[in-house]
Amino acid sequence: MLLKTLIKKNRSYRRFHEKHKISNKILISLVDLARLSGSSANLQPLKYYLSYAAETNDEIFPCLKWAGYLKDWSGPAEGERPSAYIIMLGDTNISKSFGYDAGIASQSILLGAVEKELAGCIIGSIDRGKLKSTLKIADHFEILLIIALGKPKEKVLIKPLEKNKSIKYWRDQKGVHHVPKRSMEEIIVNPLNSSQLKLLP
Amino acid sequence: MLLKTLIKKNRSYRRFHEKHKISNKILISLVDLARLSGSSANLQPLKYYLSYAAETNDEIFPCLKWAGYLKDWSGPAEGERPSAYIIMLGDTNISKSFGYDAGIASQSILLGAVEKELAGCIIGSIDRGKLKSTLKIADHFEILLIIALGKPKEKVLIKPLEKNKSIKYWRDQKGVHHVPKRSMEEIIVNPLNSSQLKLLP
Repeated sequence: MLLKTLIKKNRSYRRFHEKHKISNKILISLVDLARLSGSSANLQPLKYYLSYAAETNDEIFPCLKWAGYLKDWSGPAEGERPSAYIIMLGDTNISKSFGYDAGIASQSILLGAVEKELAGCIIGSIDRGKLKSTLKIADHFEILLIIALGKPKEKVLIKPLEKNKSIKYWRDQKGVHHVPKRSMEEIIVNPLNSSQLKLLP
Repeated sequence: MLLKTLIKKNRSYRRFHEKHKISNKILISLVDLARLSGSSANLQPLKYYLSYAAETNDEIFPCLKWAGYLKDWSGPAEGERPSAYIIMLGDTNISKSFGYDAGIASQSILLGAVEKELAGCIIGSIDRGKLKSTLKIADHFEILLIIALGKPKEKVLIKPLEKNKSIKYWRDQKGVHHVPKRSMEEIIVNPLNSSQLKLLP
């Protein structure tokens, strides 16, 4: 698949066909994509906790907060929850900062998921203390983020961000999720002349 | 191309066929991949300064430090320098933190470059003050990182990291660049049983 197709398909999904199982083998292959991705000064401080079984999934789910902008929605209902999770940890014995590495690795994992007809969502709003004690994650690991994974059960659309409108995503009456994206003109700061403007997609 | 092939090909390259030009159109298509990628709370605070002309490239190059672990090498010689740069900026009017977004966007841009038979390197060691004043970048932008781009002119190999050996990359006598990578066993923290270990690539 062309990378652009993969990137466009890779939206944040929050409702899934929970019955569709994800095997440990698939999770391992996704982590391998992260492992082979770039790392600042090649330190490779990221570690991973994998969950694909109902028992651990059920322990992780109550530690998560979903979709900050959807005030009337507290997260996916039973049957629509993720089939698996990849918990990304920062090993503080190796490094104290993880920012770019975590983003790079997340993108590799999510694009890999999309290639396998799955999808996911990066979740940063986590009850870290509770999760750490529940899963017995060692103290020297910092919980950076969680990638929730599943077979998507909703429609997500990218929309151009209109002038003076909010970047907040929203869900319409049919349950379709809309995501306003800034234009190329807004994000390229070079002075662009008219021939360059014509190049913008 | 399979994503895994793309990710494996996407190594950090630091020497290029400088004569191979990269058009503004290509840079714009790469930034579009970043634009369509995920952003924390959909804020989209990343902005981009593009350089493909020799004049601006020559202004950017002296502001960069290359390959911290290669103590005998101060960076690519004339003729082997990048053909283009994408300077990634954080718009502090939109957000004060950019970590995951910057990593996600960088990975999209670099994979896009590899798909076009180019390659790049994320550079974080930058004389930010000098670069900001040279390129007249407005004060409310934070220079996060620079992606140097070009047609690669060196060989980069991934190697398994051996026990108790250093993660530092190194260059052999033939100029081949070696990058030790941690194993899957090292980065997955779950207790793995023998049938799971068999799944590891």
